[in-house]
Amino acid sequence: MQNFNIKELAKALGLSTSTVSRAFRDNSDISKETKERILAKAREFNYQPNHYASNLREQRSKTIAVIVPELANNFFSQAIHGIERVARDKGYHILIYATEDDYEKEVSFIRHLHNGRADGIIMSVSGEANDHTYLNELSQKRLPLVFFDRVYEDIITPRVITNDYDSSFSATEHLIKQGCKKIAYLVINKNLSIGKFRMQGYIDALAKYEIPFDDRLVVDCTNSYAKNNLILKRLLVDVGPDGVFTSVERLAFATYYACYDLNIQIPQQLRVIGFSSLEIAPLLNPSLTTVTQPATKIGIEAANLLFKMLEAPETVDPNEEIVLNSKLIKRRSTEK
Amino acid sequence: MQNFNIKELAKALGLSTSTVSRAFRDNSDISKETKERILAKAREFNYQPNHYASNLREQRSKTIAVIVPELANNFFSQAIHGIERVARDKGYHILIYATEDDYEKEVSFIRHLHNGRADGIIMSVSGEANDHTYLNELSQKRLPLVFFDRVYEDIITPRVITNDYDSSFSATEHLIKQGCKKIAYLVINKNLSIGKFRMQGYIDALAKYEIPFDDRLVVDCTNSYAKNNLILKRLLVDVGPDGVFTSVERLAFATYYACYDLNIQIPQQLRVIGFSSLEIAPLLNPSLTTVTQPATKIGIEAANLLFKMLEAPETVDPNEEIVLNSKLIKRRSTEK
Repeated sequence: MQNFNIKELAKALGLSTSTVSRAFRDNSDISKETKERILAKAREFNYQPNHYASNLREQRSKTIAVIVPELANNFFSQAIHGIERVARDKGYHILIYATEDDYEKEVSFIRHLHNGRADGIIMSVSGEANDHTYLNELSQKRLPLVFFDRVYEDIITPRVITNDYDSSFSATEHLIKQGCKKIAYLVINKNLSIGKFRMQGYIDALAKYEIPFDDRLVVDCTNSYAKNNLILKRLLVDVGPDGVFTSVERLAFATYYACYDLNIQIPQQLRVIGFSSLEIAPLLNPSLTTVTQPATKIGIEAANLLFKMLEAPETVDPNEEIVLNSKLIKRRSTEK
Repeated sequence: MQNFNIKELAKALGLSTSTVSRAFRDNSDISKETKERILAKAREFNYQPNHYASNLREQRSKTIAVIVPELANNFFSQAIHGIERVARDKGYHILIYATEDDYEKEVSFIRHLHNGRADGIIMSVSGEANDHTYLNELSQKRLPLVFFDRVYEDIITPRVITNDYDSSFSATEHLIKQGCKKIAYLVINKNLSIGKFRMQGYIDALAKYEIPFDDRLVVDCTNSYAKNNLILKRLLVDVGPDGVFTSVERLAFATYYACYDLNIQIPQQLRVIGFSSLEIAPLLNPSLTTVTQPATKIGIEAANLLFKMLEAPETVDPNEEIVLNSKLIKRRSTEK
């Protein structure tokens, strides 16, 4: 690999290296003609100014980091797609990290970002964390941080979320209006705030219609397909709900698989509704009623918020919270 | 934001800055005790050595770039998931870029990576490109580059692909054995090599069973849902195929939607098979017969190959080609 350096480039142009270097920094004390001549020669030589050297001068990496629990997940891949569109328009690069809901990984990623690799962080938090004081520890020199969807309540930083309580209330109410009296609520990570809000919506909707709360119907699931299949079959056989509301997309799929296995008809014997960003929900058997979060829009708003923090930090309230609305889309899985 | 620098840290320790700096570079001429003392104090001060400064010394970014046509896509998000796992184990960071099948973006991303931001590139090429000599132009100082899935035939660099010709042949043969005599082949970007191999498998399977090739049955689709819906309805009404083989997942979904709209029964009136990485293909109505590529494994192999190029370039043949097998999974959409 042949590498031309700035000295060789300057020599070929008959200029000093500092003039050439200034041209790459868009320095206004160089004439337009000279600058164009330098850039043309650079293209010919295939020369690119060293990124690290110029960033060391500017103290900007032009990079943002995106930390999510999972990559192979509809919601997060759509959100990243939204973030990418905004970042690209701004000429920024994106680093991605997947915590796999592992708190240790989350801490390690964040610590490693506090060395100039990124200018800011957009994060949907791992589900495991109970102690996230590490973010406070870092707060004195904290990078601009925006939470989206899954947030830590006790960390003060701007965030983009959806109306989880209202959505859950509406989803549960919809099942009740379709005739369900024994509604299971499936969750992963009850302790995350998002899980709490969603669960409260479920509880309050039951109360409104005077349906007694039964804690056998609140089921803590996992990220493992095999384990969920067992958990759900046990629920369907032993407790026998007539409706299922899932706080996570994959739990709706797990419910379908369990029903197929047990030959339970959806919606005749069991009505199902789930939070889901699946674009092909209408193609499922039966088509799935969903609470659909605007995933791409969430990504776009989170990125806009982070760039506002980078470009005009004084205009951003640390308590800023953007709440987007999810949409209840009724399909066959909850029909009467 | 309070920032401790290396001078303040060294002063607090009563050491020289060069000793402290060497500790962060894992320099063996510093005693274990001193090193531990330095690292403990650094933690206390929340000091991180500047990433750009140390990379400028090492000429390594510890970062790889991943360029894909789309992010909100099952195949690519699973492949990125595989790449991420390998990179994380190696302590590497990942930059991601989405070309949206736009050749200009692809060129621009690659040009911007040749300045030290990344040590290597893993890419699935954009569909548009006819002229990719830009990669040859850059070849003199080219970063290690691995193609996966979608490749440029005329660029010599290691690659991870699947057995596209064989898979297409088997998929077409499967439709023929299920009784289809008028099989449509749906494609996006006929010109990409992956499209050519897949199409050749279709053509050769027809020939083997003496079914005449009819070019009205080879349909060039788009990335737009609305346009595909029109194109497919026209095909179904005007040409009337009894089988559809789609080279891209979203075209199988488009076929389902068009059949729903026209009240055409799958599989009774039309059998459908498609390349797809959709994990919930069994939940579709009807469940979809797929040619499933090992997407996560493709990502893992591509990342392993790139790290081999980074760590021991002399051991990698530039013509190296890893071919993984896709799997034909028969489901209801092609039943007799």
